[in-house]
Amino acid sequence: MAAKFVSERNLKFLLYEVFNADALTGYDYYQEHNRKAFDMVIKEAIKFSKNLLYPVFTEMDRKPPELADGKVKVHPSVKTILKEFGKGGWITGRMPYELDGDQLPHLIANACEFIFAAANYSASVYPGLSAGATHLIESFGSRELFDTYAPSMLSGKWQGTMALTEPEAGSSLADITTTAEPTGHGYYMIRGQKIFISAGDHDGVENVVHLMLGKIKDAPPGVKGISLFVVPKYRLDENGRMISNDVVTSGLFHKLGYRGCPIVQLAIGDKNNCRGWLVGEPHNGLRYMFQMMNEARIGVGIGAVGIATAAYYASLDYAKTRRQGRSIANKDPALPQIPIIEHADVKRMLLFQKAVVEGALSLIMQCSKYVDMTIALPDGEKEKYQLLLGILTPVAKNYPSEMGIESVSRGLQCFGGSGYCDDYMIEQYYRDARIHPIHEGTTGIQGMDLLGRKVVAQNGRAFMFFTEEIRNTTAIAEKFSELRPFARQMDESLTTLENVTRHLMQVFMEKGVEYYLSDATLYLELFGITAVAWQWLLQGIAARKALENDSDKAEQTFYRGKFIALRYFFGYELPKMRGLAERLLNSDGLTVEMTTELFND
Amino acid sequence: MAAKFVSERNLKFLLYEVFNADALTGYDYYQEHNRKAFDMVIKEAIKFSKNLLYPVFTEMDRKPPELADGKVKVHPSVKTILKEFGKGGWITGRMPYELDGDQLPHLIANACEFIFAAANYSASVYPGLSAGATHLIESFGSRELFDTYAPSMLSGKWQGTMALTEPEAGSSLADITTTAEPTGHGYYMIRGQKIFISAGDHDGVENVVHLMLGKIKDAPPGVKGISLFVVPKYRLDENGRMISNDVVTSGLFHKLGYRGCPIVQLAIGDKNNCRGWLVGEPHNGLRYMFQMMNEARIGVGIGAVGIATAAYYASLDYAKTRRQGRSIANKDPALPQIPIIEHADVKRMLLFQKAVVEGALSLIMQCSKYVDMTIALPDGEKEKYQLLLGILTPVAKNYPSEMGIESVSRGLQCFGGSGYCDDYMIEQYYRDARIHPIHEGTTGIQGMDLLGRKVVAQNGRAFMFFTEEIRNTTAIAEKFSELRPFARQMDESLTTLENVTRHLMQVFMEKGVEYYLSDATLYLELFGITAVAWQWLLQGIAARKALENDSDKAEQTFYRGKFIALRYFFGYELPKMRGLAERLLNSDGLTVEMTTELFND
Repeated sequence: MAAKFVSERNLKFLLYEVFNADALTGYDYYQEHNRKAFDMVIKEAIKFSKNLLYPVFTEMDRKPPELADGKVKVHPSVKTILKEFGKGGWITGRMPYELDGDQLPHLIANACEFIFAAANYSASVYPGLSAGATHLIESFGSRELFDTYAPSMLSGKWQGTMALTEPEAGSSLADITTTAEPTGHGYYMIRGQKIFISAGDHDGVENVVHLMLGKIKDAPPGVKGISLFVVPKYRLDENGRMISNDVVTSGLFHKLGYRGCPIVQLAIGDKNNCRGWLVGEPHNGLRYMFQMMNEARIGVGIGAVGIATAAYYASLDYAKTRRQGRSIANKDPALPQIPIIEHADVKRMLLFQKAVVEGALSLIMQCSKYVDMTIALPDGEKEKYQLLLGILTPVAKNYPSEMGIESVSRGLQCFGGSGYCDDYMIEQYYRDARIHPIHEGTTGIQGMDLLGRKVVAQNGRAFMFFTEEIRNTTAIAEKFSELRPFARQMDESLTTLENVTRHLMQVFMEKGVEYYLSDATLYLELFGITAVAWQWLLQGIAARKALENDSDKAEQTFYRGKFIALRYFFGYELPKMRGLAERLLNSDGLTVEMTTELFND
Repeated sequence: MAAKFVSERNLKFLLYEVFNADALTGYDYYQEHNRKAFDMVIKEAIKFSKNLLYPVFTEMDRKPPELADGKVKVHPSVKTILKEFGKGGWITGRMPYELDGDQLPHLIANACEFIFAAANYSASVYPGLSAGATHLIESFGSRELFDTYAPSMLSGKWQGTMALTEPEAGSSLADITTTAEPTGHGYYMIRGQKIFISAGDHDGVENVVHLMLGKIKDAPPGVKGISLFVVPKYRLDENGRMISNDVVTSGLFHKLGYRGCPIVQLAIGDKNNCRGWLVGEPHNGLRYMFQMMNEARIGVGIGAVGIATAAYYASLDYAKTRRQGRSIANKDPALPQIPIIEHADVKRMLLFQKAVVEGALSLIMQCSKYVDMTIALPDGEKEKYQLLLGILTPVAKNYPSEMGIESVSRGLQCFGGSGYCDDYMIEQYYRDARIHPIHEGTTGIQGMDLLGRKVVAQNGRAFMFFTEEIRNTTAIAEKFSELRPFARQMDESLTTLENVTRHLMQVFMEKGVEYYLSDATLYLELFGITAVAWQWLLQGIAARKALENDSDKAEQTFYRGKFIALRYFFGYELPKMRGLAERLLNSDGLTVEMTTELFND
């Protein structure tokens, strides 16, 4: 039987008690759904993960992909997994009914994605990429492109990818050199190289469909000249047969973790025989791709919190069963040893994990709800939620990614020496988790996105909506006497964030953009702590209400556990703002002014 | 040629400009040495490491030890390395002349250990363990034991180990069950099991000599009944031939990192034929072993800072050569891309590493100097340095261990996606570094050692000496106008530490030891930041003085770099005290009072 890797109870708490998922069914777009159906989807996702994903989690790591004779061989279960993802309708879940989707709210679909990632992160990436690639064609491509490529991706027969990065253009997309030459036949001839392409080639599928960035000949320089193409590994000839499209896997990367999924290097059009089909308008590729990138950023957050959640339950289980040492108050060696969960320091490490993973998951759910609102609401009312989603996307990507590593590391620490050995899964979680601050825009990029774009866009409207959301929450929390101190602390923290933001605006005016953005990563960290504290306050309100109404013993314990984690977050994590704010209010420009030579020796 | 993994310049700065190593030669015990000799030792250690250790760093990871037919096979270079360590006199370095040692100051010997660890941590562990084991016999064992076992360990022909941990007694040594039955023939019959024994068996040596904890039949319960034995893998029979001593390797652990060194499980005396020789007096084993453990704790700090240092230089080199993106102030895509070291966020990550590794190394050197003082000074004057060494040992173990991981992780982040792949060494540093908060007493254990023992011992005398040392430093720093603000901030931080300590004493009196120690890990963190800030202030003073006297351009750059790192530590790291202090002054007993059931779901 699979060990516990997610908590169904906690998911339901977030979905219904914190985010009121049932209320979504009041909107036209989601009216066919109901809570019972949501529950079934969640239950099925857990069952699917237990049966299909979790059992091969370790094995996919131990037998990573191999490149031989130009072919990428992956673990045999990848083929089955993708087929079953397709058959179960998991890839089409959030697509509209008219495209054979289930029109599932993102709240529910992302809860499922979280479950899959917790069970087996690498395995969850394959269908996730296909869903994103399909959505991109759906949003911006022609119906013909959709009909040609989407059905096979959605059924799990073909693999979708996002192909952005190049050897000389990692975070700097302005510098991509992949070219597209018009032919006058409805397609372009593509040439170039791509690296770090996740699931970019493998034998678990019959074809791979790259959503690829390139530049049409004579396009404007920089990001304004980037276009988006569909570039399949095999294209269909005039008789409908699949023939090679001159996309060759020239390398396979050997990674620290996340080994169940191949990351490849591609040589495109080396024989001058690679065709690509333009998606949407020329030179608008980066804008289109941002849709997939933003979804992927939330997806990274989901993956990160999934891994950290599984690691949390693994260490919790170990801490409950492993006996070692005695109470500090009575060390009599004649007494039996106690489970290590009874040691305060181990409880602290477990509470840290609980506070991080349940707080981060709540933030993900918050963003998912915003997505649903932008879909369900009429045009005039969407904008607020688009802005909220926009400003929280780098945070929802980054907090789980950075804090997920800390969380898994604390989980590993609970195992002592055993955690460092591969007898337990925890060391794999530790390796897997490290990818998240890197892919889909590094932490540095997220910080600049938040402070350089999102906070200042539209005269700071997104930021104002964000603070408004928090103040609405503290106003409710104020009404409960046990929550009042936390509401006050939240208010104070928000004021700190506002002060820091204002100060940085001043820096921007006085010293320019380099000084303004120099500590953007720390600003992102500060923002993340604030956002997750807010999520804990929301959970505290829900728990408080439930404690009044629910007398079931197990339920009471669940809600009291929530309350303790809230206290932990406000007692141990939120104070970290102090040091960050002190630094951000300093702005002495240390890193801007320092020159390279000073690093000598 | 080996890439840079340590800075000779920085080592000399610490040795001579900060810690005045030459002055040691004024003491009788060290009078045969001089600076020229010290310099030669350092230079030789670097050469040795470049030629012998660094070239097999990756290979030893890729081809980890294997257990087959009861034999542990290690990388073939281990044999050569140990022999060369022996031949070069590196294992005997700090032993007294009368035992054929070089009577090297610990300042110098530990600088060498640091160099070895930076070049190849796994390789550095083998001779380090032999040196510790030999020192233990030297200190507490008979001359006969010494003559039987030490020469072969010191020449690198035999391997020394410390054999403490058992399956049911990891951090809880009170619970070890290895037994020793007296025979009346000068030896004991040993039976038991040990796990996680580093270098506990391998084919790079002809014999393995375990310094093993066990309990003599009818010994008092708990730690008071622990004795120390020499238990070799092969013993000498009456004809001086090596015969099996019934110590069998029953398991080999597969580890996340630190793979160049085997960690084994031992079955001892299963055939009732294992002989062990008592070291010193019965039931005093733990006290003796603490000598080796304390040395090993400093050794872990050295290993941790060694790994982080090598990772720092690797990421620095990458950041200087990798071009990506443009200045935030001018993103014109027609301009060439810039080396990533010119981005403020990358500089921040590099400065973080510089501040952590050079600060932590300074702390290690500080402790090494205290060791030298306890050796060189007459009995009446030693005590102060013994107390200072005692209180700083958990800090010198923990700060490099925990912050070393953060440092390496930032180094990895500088590489972007490449850092996650095994084309570069950085991912190995990341895996290797994770061992340090676990072995030789976990972080939790170190926190309790500091707060539960060291801070309160002798009515807080060690703590008072520590604050006195810092205040002496700030008094000097006050005299330099550029250092004055840092001296003030240091004073303030020290006051915070004192307030927190006083507050915790109050908690102890009012609520007892469990509450007192519940956040000991955070106290350790706070203490570590204070101690390393002090080390930076010391370095700042030395750099300030040198800037006045030295007009060489390269030297000026070196000292100005020191100054920037000092500013970084005080600007970015020291403020982290705020959040920690806020938490520690809270003491609501959250983790003491929380019960296991509240972790349900």
